[in-house]
Amino acid sequence: MAMKRAGVSAIRALCSSPDLTRGVHSTAGSKKIVGVFYKANEYAELNPNFVGTVERGLGIRDWLESQGHQYVVTDDKEGPDCELEKHLSDLHVLITTPFHPAYVTAERIKKAKNLQLLLTAGIGSDHIDLKAAAEAGLTVAEVTGSNVVSVAEDELMRILILVRNFLPGYHQVINGDWNVAGIAHRAYDLEGKTVGTIGAGRIGRLLLQRLKPFNCNLLYHDRIKIDPELEVQTGAKFEEDLDTMLPKCDIIVLNTPLTEKTRGMLDKERISKLKKGVLIVNNARGALVDTQAVADACTSGHIGGYSGDVWFPQPAPKDHPWRYMPNQAMTPHISGTTIDAQLRYAAGTKDMLDRYFKGEEFPLQNYIVREGVLAPQYR
Amino acid sequence: MAMKRAGVSAIRALCSSPDLTRGVHSTAGSKKIVGVFYKANEYAELNPNFVGTVERGLGIRDWLESQGHQYVVTDDKEGPDCELEKHLSDLHVLITTPFHPAYVTAERIKKAKNLQLLLTAGIGSDHIDLKAAAEAGLTVAEVTGSNVVSVAEDELMRILILVRNFLPGYHQVINGDWNVAGIAHRAYDLEGKTVGTIGAGRIGRLLLQRLKPFNCNLLYHDRIKIDPELEVQTGAKFEEDLDTMLPKCDIIVLNTPLTEKTRGMLDKERISKLKKGVLIVNNARGALVDTQAVADACTSGHIGGYSGDVWFPQPAPKDHPWRYMPNQAMTPHISGTTIDAQLRYAAGTKDMLDRYFKGEEFPLQNYIVREGVLAPQYR
Repeated sequence: MAMKRAGVSAIRALCSSPDLTRGVHSTAGSKKIVGVFYKANEYAELNPNFVGTVERGLGIRDWLESQGHQYVVTDDKEGPDCELEKHLSDLHVLITTPFHPAYVTAERIKKAKNLQLLLTAGIGSDHIDLKAAAEAGLTVAEVTGSNVVSVAEDELMRILILVRNFLPGYHQVINGDWNVAGIAHRAYDLEGKTVGTIGAGRIGRLLLQRLKPFNCNLLYHDRIKIDPELEVQTGAKFEEDLDTMLPKCDIIVLNTPLTEKTRGMLDKERISKLKKGVLIVNNARGALVDTQAVADACTSGHIGGYSGDVWFPQPAPKDHPWRYMPNQAMTPHISGTTIDAQLRYAAGTKDMLDRYFKGEEFPLQNYIVREGVLAPQYR
Repeated sequence: MAMKRAGVSAIRALCSSPDLTRGVHSTAGSKKIVGVFYKANEYAELNPNFVGTVERGLGIRDWLESQGHQYVVTDDKEGPDCELEKHLSDLHVLITTPFHPAYVTAERIKKAKNLQLLLTAGIGSDHIDLKAAAEAGLTVAEVTGSNVVSVAEDELMRILILVRNFLPGYHQVINGDWNVAGIAHRAYDLEGKTVGTIGAGRIGRLLLQRLKPFNCNLLYHDRIKIDPELEVQTGAKFEEDLDTMLPKCDIIVLNTPLTEKTRGMLDKERISKLKKGVLIVNNARGALVDTQAVADACTSGHIGGYSGDVWFPQPAPKDHPWRYMPNQAMTPHISGTTIDAQLRYAAGTKDMLDRYFKGEEFPLQNYIVREGVLAPQYR
C-alpha cells in the first residue's frame, strides 16, 4: 500500500509487473481501522452469524486487536459532527458497505491525511468519490463475488413478484379480502416473456443461468459479449445497442455499475420508448434511473411494475416517491446482505486486511482503484 | 360419455380397448352446460384475455350456442338458493374451477339427474366428491398440464420470498421505515439449502428443474421415482420415506393432490419433527395441512415462514388464522389462473367439450374419473 499518496498513481501506471506492484502493499506498524456498518440493535442476539453489523463488526475485532491495530465501528456517518468525521484525521483504513453507505466525498478524503485503503464490505463502491480517491493515490477494493449469488437470486424473486402480481394478493389476505379477479387480470407466467438485462457481468450472468429453465426469451446488453459457452448454455442473445434492446423487453433488469456514464441512463425519454406495462427490476443502483420519471411512469401505468432494493440516497427519506407509487415492490437495500453474504464479505474483507498488513496484493478482480489507477470500467 | 349413468362403471371396467371406450362418449342433441367462475367485475374490461371469468366464460359462448347448446355462467355457488342449484336438475355438463370452487357434493350429484360430465377448468378436482361421481357413473376430467408451469413458477417465487425475507422489507418501505437489520438477521440465500418436495408429479418436476441452477440440495418424495434422466438433470435425490426426508429440509414444498390419504398429512406431530425455522410452501391444497397446527408453529417460530395460495375452505373466511399469523406470505388462490394459464385451460376445456359432442375420448391424462372408474392415484 502506498505510504505516500501524492504522485503514486503516476508511478504505478508505469509498474505493470506483479513483483514491482506487490511491494507497495508493504506497510508497518499499528493501523487505525474504522468500519461503518448498520446497527443490529434488538436483532443482534437473534443470529450468531449476523456479522455485518456494528455489534459484530465483521467478527474481526479480536483478530485485529491481537495484532496491535485499533478498530472503531460505528453507524454514525452523516453530518460534520458524526462519529466517522471524528476519526477521519487519523484513520488508515475505512471499511464501508453499500447497505448503509458512508459517502466518502472528496472533502472527506482530503481530511483523511493518513488514509491508504478504502474497503467495501460487499460490492459497489459508488458511495466513494473514486476520482478523488484515485487522485489521492488511494486503493479502493471490494469483495468481488461475495454477494453476486445473493443479488441474482433476489432479482429473480423480484421478476416473479412483478410478473405474477404477488403483492395485491398478499394485501387482500391481510386486509381480510378475497378477490381473485383483482389479481389475475394482470398476473402472468414468466414463461415466454422477453427478459433483457442491462449488463451481463457477474450478477447478470448468474441471473441468466437462473432464468434459463423458465423458457424466456433472454437478451443482454453489455460492452462485450459473454463467454460463447455461457451464451449457448443460457440461450441469451447479445444486443449491441441498448436502445434497440429495451423496447423488445417485457421485463428489464439493471445489472450495471453506477458510473458517470450510466447515471440516470433510464430517463424519461428512454422510459417513454419501453413497452407499455414493462416491468423493471433494479438491484444495481437507484441513481441509474431518474427517480421521478420512474414514479410518474408507474402512476400512468406505462411501467407496469418496479422492484428493487436500491435508492438514492440511502436510507431513502420518508417522502421518497417510490415508497408511494403504485405497483412497486421495493425494499430497503438488502439483497446483498443476507446472512450467507455477510459471512462471505466478512471473510473477504479480513483476507484483504491480512494481505494489506503483509504487503501482499489483493485478488486482482477486487480492485476498483489500485494505488491511484481506476479500474477500466470506471474510467 | 355415458348416457345412462347407473351400472356404467362396472361395464367400463371391462372395456380397456380404446375402440370400445371411445364409443361411450357419443351423445346427441342440445346440451345444457353450466360454468362456475369468479367474477371479473371492474377488471373485466382491463384485459381482453381475461377469459376465466363469469364475464368471458372461457370465451366459448358463441361457439357453444352456434351448435345449439345452452350455456349458463355464474359465480353464485353457495347455499340452497344459489344460481348453480337452480340449474342442477337439467344440466348435462358442469364446468368448475379450483380458484372459485363450486363444491360438487354427493347431494348435488344426486340432484343433477342429467349430469354426465364434470370438467375442471384448471387442475385439481378435490372440490368434487369423486367417490360419489364415480358411483354415479360420471366422468370427471381436468385440463392436465394447463397450469403446471404457472404453479411451479409461483412456488419458486414463494420459496425466494420466504428464504430472502422479502415481506418485512416491503412493509418497511410502505411504512416509511428503513431498518436493514430488521430484515437481514433472518434473510438467507437459497443457494446451499436443502429443498424437499412432497410429490414430484408434473408440477414438482417443473419446480425441480427451475431450482437446479440455484445449487440447492434437492430431495423428493413420491410413490415412484422420477425418470432417471430427469434425476440426473436436476440432481434431485429420491426419498422413499417421507418422515425420513422432512427433518432434513430447510424448505418443504407440497406438490401432492388432496386425497383421503393425504388430507391433513402435515399435522402437529409431523411439524414438531421439522427443523426449527423450516420454510413451507403449499400451492397444492390447504387441507393437506392442519390449519391450526401451522398457525401455532408460525407463532412459536418453529415454522419460520409459510407461503401458499390454497386454503380450506375457499374463499378463506375473514377470520382464517393464516391471514394473521406471523411470517406468512399468503395470497388468494391465484397461482394457476394467470392470464397465460387461463388461455390454456380455456382452450383445453373447449377441446374436451368438442370431443364430448363428437363422442371422442379425451387426452388420457385428463381423466380423474372415467365413466365411473377413478384414476389410480385417487383410489
